[in-house]
Amino acid sequence: MNEKSLAQVFGIVVRKIRSEAGLSQEEFAVQCQLHRTYIGSIERGEKNVTLETATKIATALKIKLSYLISYVEEEREKLQG
Amino acid sequence: MNEKSLAQVFGIVVRKIRSEAGLSQEEFAVQCQLHRTYIGSIERGEKNVTLETATKIATALKIKLSYLISYVEEEREKLQG
Repeated sequence: MNEKSLAQVFGIVVRKIRSEAGLSQEEFAVQCQLHRTYIGSIERGEKNVTLETATKIATALKIKLSYLISYVEEEREKLQG
Repeated sequence: MNEKSLAQVFGIVVRKIRSEAGLSQEEFAVQCQLHRTYIGSIERGEKNVTLETATKIATALKIKLSYLISYVEEEREKLQG
């Protein structure tokens, strides 16, 4: 079993939606008003983001934060089988 | 207009659900594994909590984080109505 932390799954999901939207980390960082290296560390699951930062990310992905979180919950359940 | 921050609305919603569940701040703090004074400052909207802390709170309220967040989004829309 490879139990993943919330931060790790959050990072996986953000990277997935960002890539599907055809955005580079750099373009995405500008839209989030966050630094590119910070986005990198979020996507690697190294940061436990605040609700405010998570909202900036959701807004840049053009989704509601509650939708982003429910996606993360679903992925986490799948990964934990 | 009284525009409220995400942290403020999060605090209002947490206090509301906690009270409806008949829990004191002290009982709730134990269930969240957080300090009572920290719960107080969250409920007053003074803290911008992390996703991890928000998850502890949702778990103690016996709801999913995505549900708690969607409740916060709805309340925020109403307050800004």
